[in-house]
Amino acid sequence: MTAYSRADALAADAADPLAGRRDAFVLPDGLIYLDGNSLGPLVRASAARVTGTVTDEWGQGLIASWNTAGWMDLPLSIGDRIAPLIGAGPGEVVATDSLTILLAKAIGAALALRPERSTVLTDAANFHTDLYILEAMARRAGRPLQVRALERGDLAGALDDSVALVMLTHVDFRTGEMLDLAGLTAQVHRAGALMLWDLAHSTGAVPVDLTGAGADFAAGCTYKYLNGGPGSPAFLWIAPRLVGEVANPLPGWLGHARPFDFEATFTPAPGIRGFVTSTPSILALAALDGALDAFDGIDPAALRAKSLALTDLFIALVEERLPGALALVTPRDHARRGSQVAWRHPAAYGIVQALIARGVVGDFRAPDIARFGFAPLYVRYVDVFDAVTHLAAVLEAGEHLDARHATRRAVT
Amino acid sequence: MTAYSRADALAADAADPLAGRRDAFVLPDGLIYLDGNSLGPLVRASAARVTGTVTDEWGQGLIASWNTAGWMDLPLSIGDRIAPLIGAGPGEVVATDSLTILLAKAIGAALALRPERSTVLTDAANFHTDLYILEAMARRAGRPLQVRALERGDLAGALDDSVALVMLTHVDFRTGEMLDLAGLTAQVHRAGALMLWDLAHSTGAVPVDLTGAGADFAAGCTYKYLNGGPGSPAFLWIAPRLVGEVANPLPGWLGHARPFDFEATFTPAPGIRGFVTSTPSILALAALDGALDAFDGIDPAALRAKSLALTDLFIALVEERLPGALALVTPRDHARRGSQVAWRHPAAYGIVQALIARGVVGDFRAPDIARFGFAPLYVRYVDVFDAVTHLAAVLEAGEHLDARHATRRAVT
Repeated sequence: MTAYSRADALAADAADPLAGRRDAFVLPDGLIYLDGNSLGPLVRASAARVTGTVTDEWGQGLIASWNTAGWMDLPLSIGDRIAPLIGAGPGEVVATDSLTILLAKAIGAALALRPERSTVLTDAANFHTDLYILEAMARRAGRPLQVRALERGDLAGALDDSVALVMLTHVDFRTGEMLDLAGLTAQVHRAGALMLWDLAHSTGAVPVDLTGAGADFAAGCTYKYLNGGPGSPAFLWIAPRLVGEVANPLPGWLGHARPFDFEATFTPAPGIRGFVTSTPSILALAALDGALDAFDGIDPAALRAKSLALTDLFIALVEERLPGALALVTPRDHARRGSQVAWRHPAAYGIVQALIARGVVGDFRAPDIARFGFAPLYVRYVDVFDAVTHLAAVLEAGEHLDARHATRRAVT
Repeated sequence: MTAYSRADALAADAADPLAGRRDAFVLPDGLIYLDGNSLGPLVRASAARVTGTVTDEWGQGLIASWNTAGWMDLPLSIGDRIAPLIGAGPGEVVATDSLTILLAKAIGAALALRPERSTVLTDAANFHTDLYILEAMARRAGRPLQVRALERGDLAGALDDSVALVMLTHVDFRTGEMLDLAGLTAQVHRAGALMLWDLAHSTGAVPVDLTGAGADFAAGCTYKYLNGGPGSPAFLWIAPRLVGEVANPLPGWLGHARPFDFEATFTPAPGIRGFVTSTPSILALAALDGALDAFDGIDPAALRAKSLALTDLFIALVEERLPGALALVTPRDHARRGSQVAWRHPAAYGIVQALIARGVVGDFRAPDIARFGFAPLYVRYVDVFDAVTHLAAVLEAGEHLDARHATRRAVT
C-alpha cells in the first residue's frame, strides 16, 4: 500500500458504484464527516418529508392525517423498510420509542419466557445504557435474577442451564469489533437461553441476518447509519415464532388490538404491533422515513465491500504515515470489524478536537479512544486520504496538545 | 341567552383580549377546528423552528449541535417553559418519551416509596392506556399489589392505610369533567398515600397548580392544548421534596450524572434529569419548543375565562336551538369543567362525521359521545356559533343517519 496517492483515492471514488448516492445527503462544504456512527447526516429526502408532514399533513390535514396520511401505520410501515437491512420479514419490525425503552420491552418479554432460570449475561464492555436497563428490568422481573457482565471471552464458560437471557451488542461502540451474530446465537440456544441483540452500530452498515441466525430479539437505533435524525425512533424485532408468546411489559393503547374501542383490559394487537406503547412522534418518524430513501436499491454486498475498503484504507494509511503513533483497537479481521476504526492514544481527546478544528469530524470515547465512522453511502476514498493527511499534520505540529483542544469539556 | 346572534358572537371576538393570538396558528380556511383536545394545530413558530433544526442544526451543525444548539438541554429547557402552566418551578419538569412511558416511570418511582402498602387506586373511567400501564407496573413492583379501578364517587371510601398510590386524570377525556386536584391530593395524603396526576387534558387549557396543591407526581401530553405536534414528547413533574428520594425505573444513559464518562453503574443526574432515559427526538422537541411560543405572555386567568365563556356559549346555543336533542355529559359547574363539551347521542358517530363533512371537526368517543374541544388561543366565539348552526342543520336534515356518515370505521 506504499505510495497510495490522493489521485489513487480519487480514482477509487470514480470507480465506486455507490458514489452517486452521496448526492442524496446534505454535507457541509469542506467537512469530512466521519461521525455518522454517532449521528448520520441529513438526507435531502428526509428534509422534504418533514416539511410535508409539518406543513401539509399536520398544518392542513390536522387530526384526519392519522388516517389519511398513514400516521397510524408509520411504526409498522417504517419497520418494513428497516426489515430487509436486518434479515427480517414484513410485519416483523416496529419503529417507536428510544432504544433503551425498546430494550426494556425486549428484556421484560424475554425474561418472562424463561421463568425458571435465574441468570442474565451481558458483556462488561456493552454500551452503558444497555447495562443500566438490563439491571433495572432484571430487578423488576418478579423473581431473583443475577445479572453478570462478563469479559468478552468468558461468555462460553458462563452459559449453563441457569441462563435465561444473553444480551449483546453486535458491533462494539468503542472498538468497532463485530461479534459473530449467528455463532453466538447458536451457542446461547444450545444452553436453552434466549438472545437479545443490540444492533445500534450495525444496522445500515454491516450485513445482519436475524432470520438466518435464528435470532430471538433485536433492537437498534436509527440515528447512526440509518440517518434518521437526532434522537430518531428506535426499532424492535421479535422472531415470528416468539412474538405470539410474549407480552409487552410496557403496554399502551396504541398496541391494543382495538385502540379506539377504549377497553379497560389490554388485549394486544397481533404480532409486533402489540409492542407499540403510545403515540410516537410523527415528525420523528417522517424524518426517518425520508432518510430510508437513501437505502432504496442499494446492494448490501456493495455496501459492505465499500465499508471494508474504506476502513482498510484508513488503517493502512495511518500505519504507513504515522507508524506506531496510535494503537489500533479495531480488529483487522474483516469478519470481526464493523464500519468504524478506533485508535487508542493518551491524547485521544485532543486529537479529535484538533481534527474537528480542521474540519474532520470523528469523536472521542472515554478514556482514550479516537473513533472514526465510515458510512459507505456518503464517505469517499478521498475523504479517508484527506483525513489521514490532517491527522498527520495534527500529530506532527502537536496541535492535539494545544490547550484549545486538549482541555476536555463535559460533553464531547 | 335567547336571540344570541352571529353578530353577538362577532362582537365577542372583537372584544376578546386573546383574539390576536389566533394569528400564531395555521388554521385551514373555512375549517372550524374543535379537536385541539386531540391534536392541536400547527403553530407558525413551530414550523419555523423545525425547519431551522433540520436545515441548520442537523444539516449543517451535525453532531456539534448537541452542544452548540442546546440539544442536550432541550428536555429540561422545554420543561422550564411548561412549568408555569402547571404551577411548577424551574428545573422540575422534563419533556421526553411518550405519556405512557412517563406514567410508567412515575408509577414505578412512587410504588417504591410505599413498600409496605399493597393497594393502588384509580378511576374506572380513566383513559385506558393509564389503566394498562398501571396494571403492568403494579405487576412488576416486586410485591403483590392489588389495582382497584373505582367508580368516581367511591374513592374516599377506598382510601385506607393499605393504599400506596392513587392515579387520576385531572380532566376526563370523555366527559370533560375536571376533578378537584388540590382537594383530592389532600384527601389522598391524609391516608398516607401518594398521588399521580395525568394532566393530558388539562395542560394549556385549565389552571393547574401542582405546587399549591402539594402534589407528588404529574405527567401530561403536549400534542393537545400545547400544540406540540402529532405524538410530541410528554412531560413529567416530580415534587422537589420527592425527586431526590426516587429512582427512575427505566434508567438510561442520558439520565446519568456523567453520561459521557460511560460508567458501568447508573448514578442518576440530580433532580428530574435522572428521569430522562435515552436520546429523545430533537425534531419533536423542536416542534414543541416552537409551539410553546403561542403561550408567551398569555395570562392564565384570561385563558380560563375565555375557555369557560366558549363552553358556556356552546352549551347554551345547543340547548336553545336543539332542545332535548343531545344529552350534556360535561358538568355545568365551572369548577368541574375542563375545556371541552361532550354530548351523548345514540348516533354520535354519525353526527361527528356529518359535521366533519361540513368542515366542523370534533371527535367521537365510543360508545356514544360527540366531543368538542375549545382551545381558547385560537377558537373564536363565531366558530362556536357557526358550529351550532351546522349541528342544527345536520340533525334537522338527518345527515347523521346518512350511510356515508353513520357507518363506523375502525379508526375515527
